[in-house]
Amino acid sequence: MPVGTQGTVKAVPQDTLEALGAEIILGNTYHLYLRPGHEAIRRMGGLHKFISWPHALLTDSGGFQVFSLNELRKVTDDGVRFRSHLDGSSHFFTPEHSIDVQIALGADICMAFDECTEYPADRRRAEESLRLTMAWARRSLDHFRAHSHEVPWFDPKVRCMQCQCFGIVQGGMYTDLRRQCAERLIAMDFDGYAIGGLSVGEPRELTLEMIAETLPLLPKDKPRYVMGVGYPDEIEQYARMGVDMMDCVLPTRAARHGLLFTSEGRLNIKNKQYAEDQNPPDPLCDCLVCRRYSRAYLRHLMQSGEALSGTLNSIHNLAFYLGIMKRVRDSLASALDNSGAPG
Amino acid sequence: MPVGTQGTVKAVPQDTLEALGAEIILGNTYHLYLRPGHEAIRRMGGLHKFISWPHALLTDSGGFQVFSLNELRKVTDDGVRFRSHLDGSSHFFTPEHSIDVQIALGADICMAFDECTEYPADRRRAEESLRLTMAWARRSLDHFRAHSHEVPWFDPKVRCMQCQCFGIVQGGMYTDLRRQCAERLIAMDFDGYAIGGLSVGEPRELTLEMIAETLPLLPKDKPRYVMGVGYPDEIEQYARMGVDMMDCVLPTRAARHGLLFTSEGRLNIKNKQYAEDQNPPDPLCDCLVCRRYSRAYLRHLMQSGEALSGTLNSIHNLAFYLGIMKRVRDSLASALDNSGAPG
Repeated sequence: MPVGTQGTVKAVPQDTLEALGAEIILGNTYHLYLRPGHEAIRRMGGLHKFISWPHALLTDSGGFQVFSLNELRKVTDDGVRFRSHLDGSSHFFTPEHSIDVQIALGADICMAFDECTEYPADRRRAEESLRLTMAWARRSLDHFRAHSHEVPWFDPKVRCMQCQCFGIVQGGMYTDLRRQCAERLIAMDFDGYAIGGLSVGEPRELTLEMIAETLPLLPKDKPRYVMGVGYPDEIEQYARMGVDMMDCVLPTRAARHGLLFTSEGRLNIKNKQYAEDQNPPDPLCDCLVCRRYSRAYLRHLMQSGEALSGTLNSIHNLAFYLGIMKRVRDSLASALDNSGAPG
Repeated sequence: MPVGTQGTVKAVPQDTLEALGAEIILGNTYHLYLRPGHEAIRRMGGLHKFISWPHALLTDSGGFQVFSLNELRKVTDDGVRFRSHLDGSSHFFTPEHSIDVQIALGADICMAFDECTEYPADRRRAEESLRLTMAWARRSLDHFRAHSHEVPWFDPKVRCMQCQCFGIVQGGMYTDLRRQCAERLIAMDFDGYAIGGLSVGEPRELTLEMIAETLPLLPKDKPRYVMGVGYPDEIEQYARMGVDMMDCVLPTRAARHGLLFTSEGRLNIKNKQYAEDQNPPDPLCDCLVCRRYSRAYLRHLMQSGEALSGTLNSIHNLAFYLGIMKRVRDSLASALDNSGAPG
């Protein structure tokens, strides 16, 4: 899932996202709550309509930003008090309020409000953090069930309510805590399950270990989502392990810094060696950037500080990421065909 | 002509320019000479190939930037010494060198190297400036004729040399100097004629007067180009007077500052009144921005400092400008039909 923090996947127009085959993007509850405000978006018919994205939208709970962007946050059992990074104003998020905001935005998938346990965290701290996450998961889901029909796009004539709520497995780097959390969340019967609290500074083997230990605990007939990963080889590895969904700012953020992901590895387009390189960014890629532009031109745009640089680099990186996921899906489908399962 | 200063019409991808119906864009010789350098572009096959624009390209002479971006320039009869705005390095442009650079870039239309007379300029200053422009026009054209076959895309098997050179009429705000310049340039037999030195701070009536006095002096069977104009009503007015070509950074520069041109007038998208305005930027416009996005969303992108803001605003403004020119062309064509001229 490309990340559209403030209601835009940075520098990429919506029709281009569609051309790239993106089927779902992520919006950040924290950012949209602060600006333009969830009530304004509700009045305008919800985030789909506001940003002109008639496809699936997932919103995070705001928890991650509240914890990562706020030095002065104050956590109680009830919720989190924090200051806006925009104007310093004081705000209070509870699980109920996070869900209210996500429902006002009209997300197709809302995430339970959780505490993203920092790394490193000792066992006592991880246990305490997990206690909050599990209590907040219960409150998030209860509130979601009572109010999900309030999404701006809800049509009472359509009986099937599509809006879903996912729980988030925390537990730091302790596999028994992860297991305990997964079991509790599964008992609550969420619509899908995320593995959170990864890619927070831990070594990659530990990320992999946590996913490998937690994933088999989650029901296979519901979406399994690993949050905030990762590099191209990571997302391929996790997808092949059975992860259904991932989100990451990496393809677009790296793009804006001139880092391109290619079939030949990472390419820093700022390097002088590309100054007159007329090859496409990735010779094996047929995205609209690789079909039309050279490394030399992309380097020139970057060196010149031109806005088109971020746009073209992002388009290529998103195409590369979405291409990985497509290849994994295709190979899973063909493995299924070859297994002799009825067509 | 949309302006692509550094080899990109700021924030707008080339395929979008094509979708907008842009048939020719302008590149800035001064900027491209400094970065990435005209010799690098020549080695890569010319500007068309470098920026992936297989349509017409016009380059200015570099003169305007040398004069407007350089406080410390030193002008002699031979040429201009100036300092790079990028690194302070010293450079010397002569008419011959300007043409050499434009040929290395492989422009379809090169402009003679001129001195853009500042406003206000007294008669003595305007005469002296004009003397330089006319001497440089002669040298530019002679050098162009001797070297135009050196454009990177020149194919000796194709007998017809398409590369052209336009002269620029200067003369400050003195109609007799303008007339004198026009007559001298016409005698040199350029491929087209531009009216330069306008939109440099003079009142709009004076711009109009200079165009009205100069335009009829220029041959109707060659392109007549007014440089660096203007607002939407101006370009419509000048086009109806018989001006064939215009260029201006205004549609894209204004767009990046949140100023949209619409059928209802100018619209500053930053204004709070648009915060929840779900109308398209221009209800009468069917560009890809007006078909998909609301004023509220464009305002949100601007307020949030999102790159997509510059892209979408620029696309709309370019569509608006190109739409004006299309309407003028259509109405001229239909006037011609109705005049009973043979079809």
